Amino acid sequence: MIFKRFYDEKLAQASYLIGCAVTKEAAVIDANRNLDQYLQAADEEGFNIVAVTETHIHADYVSGSRELAARTNARLFLSDEGDADWKYAFAHEPNVTLIRDNDTIRIGNLRLDVWATPGHTPEHLSFILTDEPASAEPLGAFTGDFVFVGDVGRPDLLERAAGFEGTMEAAARKLFHSIQRFKTLPDALMVWPAHGAGSACGKSLGGVPVSTLGYEKVANWALRVEDESSFATQVLAGQPEPPFYFKEMKRMNKMGPAFLSELPRFVRIAGSAAAQMPAGTRILDLRPVESFSAGHIPGSLHIPMGKGFPTWAGWFTPYDEPFYVLAANEADAQQAARDLASIGLDNLAGWFGLDALRAHGSPLSTLDRVSPSEAAQRVQSGKAELLDVRGATEVAERSLAGSRNIPVGFLLRDCDIDVDRPLVVHCAAGARAAIAASVLQRVGHEKVSCVAGTVDDLAVAGLPDKG
Amino acid sequence: MIFKRFYDEKLAQASYLIGCAVTKEAAVIDANRNLDQYLQAADEEGFNIVAVTETHIHADYVSGSRELAARTNARLFLSDEGDADWKYAFAHEPNVTLIRDNDTIRIGNLRLDVWATPGHTPEHLSFILTDEPASAEPLGAFTGDFVFVGDVGRPDLLERAAGFEGTMEAAARKLFHSIQRFKTLPDALMVWPAHGAGSACGKSLGGVPVSTLGYEKVANWALRVEDESSFATQVLAGQPEPPFYFKEMKRMNKMGPAFLSELPRFVRIAGSAAAQMPAGTRILDLRPVESFSAGHIPGSLHIPMGKGFPTWAGWFTPYDEPFYVLAANEADAQQAARDLASIGLDNLAGWFGLDALRAHGSPLSTLDRVSPSEAAQRVQSGKAELLDVRGATEVAERSLAGSRNIPVGFLLRDCDIDVDRPLVVHCAAGARAAIAASVLQRVGHEKVSCVAGTVDDLAVAGLPDKG
Amino acid sequence: MIFKRFYDEKLAQASYLIGCAVTKEAAVIDANRNLDQYLQAADEEGFNIVAVTETHIHADYVSGSRELAARTNARLFLSDEGDADWKYAFAHEPNVTLIRDNDTIRIGNLRLDVWATPGHTPEHLSFILTDEPASAEPLGAFTGDFVFVGDVGRPDLLERAAGFEGTMEAAARKLFHSIQRFKTLPDALMVWPAHGAGSACGKSLGGVPVSTLGYEKVANWALRVEDESSFATQVLAGQPEPPFYFKEMKRMNKMGPAFLSELPRFVRIAGSAAAQMPAGTRILDLRPVESFSAGHIPGSLHIPMGKGFPTWAGWFTPYDEPFYVLAANEADAQQAARDLASIGLDNLAGWFGLDALRAHGSPLSTLDRVSPSEAAQRVQSGKAELLDVRGATEVAERSLAGSRNIPVGFLLRDCDIDVDRPLVVHCAAGARAAIAASVLQRVGHEKVSCVAGTVDDLAVAGLPDKG
Amino acid sequence: MIFKRFYDEKLAQASYLIGCAVTKEAAVIDANRNLDQYLQAADEEGFNIVAVTETHIHADYVSGSRELAARTNARLFLSDEGDADWKYAFAHEPNVTLIRDNDTIRIGNLRLDVWATPGHTPEHLSFILTDEPASAEPLGAFTGDFVFVGDVGRPDLLERAAGFEGTMEAAARKLFHSIQRFKTLPDALMVWPAHGAGSACGKSLGGVPVSTLGYEKVANWALRVEDESSFATQVLAGQPEPPFYFKEMKRMNKMGPAFLSELPRFVRIAGSAAAQMPAGTRILDLRPVESFSAGHIPGSLHIPMGKGFPTWAGWFTPYDEPFYVLAANEADAQQAARDLASIGLDNLAGWFGLDALRAHGSPLSTLDRVSPSEAAQRVQSGKAELLDVRGATEVAERSLAGSRNIPVGFLLRDCDIDVDRPLVVHCAAGARAAIAASVLQRVGHEKVSCVAGTVDDLAVAGLPDKG
Repeated sequence: MIFKRFYDEKLAQASYLIGCAVTKEAAVIDANRNLDQYLQAADEEGFNIVAVTETHIHADYVSGSRELAARTNARLFLSDEGDADWKYAFAHEPNVTLIRDNDTIRIGNLRLDVWATPGHTPEHLSFILTDEPASAEPLGAFTGDFVFVGDVGRPDLLERAAGFEGTMEAAARKLFHSIQRFKTLPDALMVWPAHGAGSACGKSLGGVPVSTLGYEKVANWALRVEDESSFATQVLAGQPEPPFYFKEMKRMNKMGPAFLSELPRFVRIAGSAAAQMPAGTRILDLRPVESFSAGHIPGSLHIPMGKGFPTWAGWFTPYDEPFYVLAANEADAQQAARDLASIGLDNLAGWFGLDALRAHGSPLSTLDRVSPSEAAQRVQSGKAELLDVRGATEVAERSLAGSRNIPVGFLLRDCDIDVDRPLVVHCAAGARAAIAASVLQRVGHEKVSCVAGTVDDLAVAGLPDKG
Repeated sequence: MIFKRFYDEKLAQASYLIGCAVTKEAAVIDANRNLDQYLQAADEEGFNIVAVTETHIHADYVSGSRELAARTNARLFLSDEGDADWKYAFAHEPNVTLIRDNDTIRIGNLRLDVWATPGHTPEHLSFILTDEPASAEPLGAFTGDFVFVGDVGRPDLLERAAGFEGTMEAAARKLFHSIQRFKTLPDALMVWPAHGAGSACGKSLGGVPVSTLGYEKVANWALRVEDESSFATQVLAGQPEPPFYFKEMKRMNKMGPAFLSELPRFVRIAGSAAAQMPAGTRILDLRPVESFSAGHIPGSLHIPMGKGFPTWAGWFTPYDEPFYVLAANEADAQQAARDLASIGLDNLAGWFGLDALRAHGSPLSTLDRVSPSEAAQRVQSGKAELLDVRGATEVAERSLAGSRNIPVGFLLRDCDIDVDRPLVVHCAAGARAAIAASVLQRVGHEKVSCVAGTVDDLAVAGLPDKG
Repeated sequence: MIFKRFYDEKLAQASYLIGCAVTKEAAVIDANRNLDQYLQAADEEGFNIVAVTETHIHADYVSGSRELAARTNARLFLSDEGDADWKYAFAHEPNVTLIRDNDTIRIGNLRLDVWATPGHTPEHLSFILTDEPASAEPLGAFTGDFVFVGDVGRPDLLERAAGFEGTMEAAARKLFHSIQRFKTLPDALMVWPAHGAGSACGKSLGGVPVSTLGYEKVANWALRVEDESSFATQVLAGQPEPPFYFKEMKRMNKMGPAFLSELPRFVRIAGSAAAQMPAGTRILDLRPVESFSAGHIPGSLHIPMGKGFPTWAGWFTPYDEPFYVLAANEADAQQAARDLASIGLDNLAGWFGLDALRAHGSPLSTLDRVSPSEAAQRVQSGKAELLDVRGATEVAERSLAGSRNIPVGFLLRDCDIDVDRPLVVHCAAGARAAIAASVLQRVGHEKVSCVAGTVDDLAVAGLPDKG
Repeated sequence: MIFKRFYDEKLAQASYLIGCAVTKEAAVIDANRNLDQYLQAADEEGFNIVAVTETHIHADYVSGSRELAARTNARLFLSDEGDADWKYAFAHEPNVTLIRDNDTIRIGNLRLDVWATPGHTPEHLSFILTDEPASAEPLGAFTGDFVFVGDVGRPDLLERAAGFEGTMEAAARKLFHSIQRFKTLPDALMVWPAHGAGSACGKSLGGVPVSTLGYEKVANWALRVEDESSFATQVLAGQPEPPFYFKEMKRMNKMGPAFLSELPRFVRIAGSAAAQMPAGTRILDLRPVESFSAGHIPGSLHIPMGKGFPTWAGWFTPYDEPFYVLAANEADAQQAARDLASIGLDNLAGWFGLDALRAHGSPLSTLDRVSPSEAAQRVQSGKAELLDVRGATEVAERSLAGSRNIPVGFLLRDCDIDVDRPLVVHCAAGARAAIAASVLQRVGHEKVSCVAGTVDDLAVAGLPDKG
């Protein structure tokens, strides 16, 4: 058999291709929208993709399953577990087969046993792989957002991100039972989860890509807890706030994501056209903070390229309006377009190069970045208020006296800040503070600075901890 | 001032960007659809494109003028010369300025004097550039398809390609008068034409990209002929047959080409999907002849990557049907998509990789390539007929006894060949014979071979010249 | 912790980077010469490489350990197991630490327990990784060429490839004992081997990249055999002939490989210079078989790009002479240079483009590829002899009457073939037959053809099996 | 014939390939070290390079002529004009033909008439091209550093850059006579010079790439001046200071440049190794000023990628010491290596990525960039001195009261600045001030700031002009 793991660093998301070496048939599990990677891998190995499936309706990225099945003429296996709220809206399409607990999918000589593993979501499935010619013992399990390396999928996401009120406690208990059943499998079973470190679908995912059930039994807190109630308490504690756009993702993936092949091409727009754009035009500026702070188009958001790019773009970009990116070169712009498509931000209307900065009619905005000592001085002298844009867990660990906390992602929607009052924004190390400052500038705050340094630097510079 | 020449090897087409160093304003002349090259060049030099113009309604590629003006918010200057048949259908758009003989376009301190230079087409303009701060003397002329290096634009294209019956003689005489007027300009004037060697818009274009009026007066046959009638005779003689798709190009460019930014994205399709395609699906196979002949999807056409690619694609691909390409890798597929867009073949529905060959249900077709000696033997022994797919000019130079001549481009439309009679196809060196053989295979000819060698090789191998 | 696996498809070789998330220190295990992949991965994660080690003196590729340690200023841990023949010649270098069974290497909070696991080679080590903050249980083992997925490292390589006569039986027994000791570790232990499917360091490696000890106990034949003698018999049976260059690799890796940074740059040479090359100049032609067979420089070898490229290059290229590659483009040439460096073929003197074919003074050679039916006809009519260039294992499965067998790799050294007798060469599917035919052409055989098809095709075409 | 112009933006340098379409023979004129561009262009067109020549011993970049001739087996035509100081040291090599005034080089049907055109240098030649099949009239002239578009080659370079004392006046007069002779050629002659705007080989080169003799007669000041003495005065006035490295280039090009194919490969060095580098290690930091100022390795120089990169690197890097670059990614590093090779900085020992910043033992340096108003305030209040690092011509146009002027290039060698006195550095727009500040930091100045703005901004901010 062949086995390929595809890991998207920015989504912290894993998908898998497995194939039977005899029949040259292959399956893809939990495909994202970067379909070329699967098509090319299958081509290189001489396999045909005949089956596409996914563990559940994902909330953190747009699923590529539907389009991949269409482009390959493969059968699409979708979960039929969970109640009416969790049924795929495109399940009637002719290439779809609905699957439930105890079903079996065969790909040549490979066997995927379907297990219902609810908890993270009601319709969640896991797939236990047995390579029949090699051994009757299972080789591993595709666990999706059920069991990660070092953690389990959070059962509170539905309630917090998708608005299903009052479900998280029950979900936590379901998850506990799913785990107990999973633990009956052999220690040697490999665990192939859908996420790695950095995903918002769990809180403490490890940096090792795959693990074994035996190792997780001793090293993963969630498999060690024996009591249902204390498990529920623990698993619901300290979960980070899910991004707003998760709700949108969930909706797209349930209704059936648009096909990339039907979206319009993505092109450069001359900088000179930037001068004619109406005020308020949404522009994501992809450049590093040093460049953005030196000069940017007024109202544009600082969403720099890199690991966190899709997440920050998702927090701050409406799904129902056209928007633009500003990039230092075409390669960056094209990469951003792929990243934005991965979370369904399909309304990207074009990209601007650096000529847009030159051609822009009004003066460019700058962003005031200050050292921790300068920041401390301003705050202590009363010249500015301190805004902490970190998440609740971080704030709980250390927080500075007099600071107000609004997590960066909430600034655009929930923020009632006095735009005339000078602000100094800080985060853990400086990156989010700069993003936050650009968001505040966009909503009209003109006296905002951001700290280029850590919260500990600020403490060293003289700002006392909260009492 | 700045001056940039953009040369597209496959279209044998030149476009130009000029700009005033003081005001940083720039103009683009005869843009093709590869807009990024102009946007990037302007950006790198720190210029804004404020004017877009073209010498005439082109027939050999899709104009990028309209979309470039839209993306840059530039003014679009279009010819108002010629009668009602030659008016741009989108001349009413708000950013359009119509121009006529003796008009002047100013780009900062640069001056473009508009000259009507009919002949190739009725609405044809040339632009005489004067860099006013440097000298009152003109520096050069953008001559479009009027005067090339070593030749002039053919006045028969309208009649032959666009169906304007009975116009070529009159056009030739108009061209003569345009030339005489042009010769009144100084010898030192540079000549910046819209085409180079290989273009079907003239017959003997030189390999030197730009020239001077003084040099053309002594080295270009068309400027040396003093007599109107003998000029007309000469200029109409020996012109190659224009491709069918020129008519379509002319129509597109007159009506207003679609915007690339509004076309759908271009994606890979899994090879396994090829098996489900209906018979007759149009596929252009981009691979070299050695690969194509070893195995290809039945009915696919051999249109290899390289200089002639857009031309051959244009001859054989309908503009009103979806089609596919088959490529060895994504880079080739994307390049082909750009090349096809350059001649308006916008119905490209996706690309197949090499897995399509493997996955295709029915057996692959092969193409029989034979050596000149083998070919000669088959023809002399009466086992096969000889088909010459070269153009009329080439045939006039040397032609083999017993051969029938159908230029390759005509095979798909005008061909009444007995599909049961074995055929050996030859051309000048082998490339077109292979294309022709794939076309004949598509229309049902099963006993077709192509010669891997030259017409002279065939003669050496024993086939006598026509008597 | 972080964990990265680097898999080189062409070497079928895996290397690993692990790092402690607290101290940001990292180690690399079994580095190949593509050092940038490790440097870049460490950089992206914000880690410093402080330790470099390898499981044994590799025979199938050039180790990058020495140069990586030099470029990173890391400590280099080398095996001190085995007798005098197995000592690293550069062990005295100041950054080297020698290690033996039961030693421990610490990288931040990670612990690598050193196990001597002789068998494949005497000095072979395995490294058991424990992530101390996560669990006292070990997470996995870097097993090098000791235990693979589905197989174990062959104990005959020394004798067959490096000329250590009479050692293979004893090595097999040592391997058996190493395995028994290894089986005492927990079932849940992950197994991270140094090779995947296609490596010549074992005979039946699986397509799954990593496994678990528990799964290997049930699915890997070598862990299931309980009897020492029958293990020895089985493990020595059916091993493929190791490439000649393995001996050279072993020598290089023991003596200390040259640093890539000290090798000269690799440049293009004009085709016109090909005409002046002395006869016999060694050229590896990288193009696909369709292109090579249509025309190549006389004496050049057909070594096409792709998975098998370094192996075939290694079989046929002397390590002490300069040689050239001929490539369709620079990207291919540069890729080949990297691939050749990976097996120590550092005498690459430059690359030729396709102009070398045109400019070459004498006529190009062609390669006669025939269909299975044409081949069968020639052999049955006595017009040609049949040469089978597959390996012994394949021949044992099916062999055609009258065929002579010389494995392709042996053709250049051991071949006493009558160069005047017409030959038809076949292999399993056609690829090696073409390589073999180019080798035979180089040594003066002028009447060689190769079969474009499988051995089964030949049987269907009428050639009977050996009695 | 074919005609290709190759323009290197960073060297502002043009080279040319011409070829005879009948014999497919080609020549290259004034090759730089980027040889692949010539080899590839010849290959694409199906030409063989049989002749290589150059107009003179260049001082501003390393000639590629010698290596190109070696790689192509072409004949190398070198000037034998000028006295003993101007003879090529490798003229005895077997493929060299020495040429003088009135000699002729033939490439197939193309004819190059050799004209001695001394002035810029004594051995300077121009080549008048006649395409004999097209016309007996010459088509154009390769004028090297003799006649540019809008200017002529400076006759003072030898004296100022290479130390030939007392020669510039005589050279200016020779140049005048060369020009008068050149003016006897036809107006229609095209002028193909070796440099474009931005070259230090002249002072006012135009942005149009090629011109005509007729146009230059009216638009180029140097061809309009009729009087020898006033020409000499004018041509010597206002010439910019040539970079120090020109002397080294001249020496290399005369002695015979090293072959790129013999230089060692260029590799990445782990950031962790940066910590062990001795103090004073030379590092060119390629990043943009925003990144450099935020943090750089102490003692590294700010030499950002872009048009001026080779020039600034040449001013500040000794030719006889190893040095490093620090780059954001490999592509930048490789581009820098090519750029540095173009001016002979062959001692490049490796590149560092961004991990070097993290791994560096001591704290990073920052660069204080101040706004014009902040700078004006510091200077007016006496807190800092003003240093103007522009060139003499610029200073003559506008200079601020109290400022001291040292052109940036001179800072490293001729600078006796009090390192304890706070300095504010400005230039015309900000780029050179940042470079200068990094140079001053390297030599121990710790209180240096640079102005992010123009000299005019400073005046507006309140600093008065010099009286």
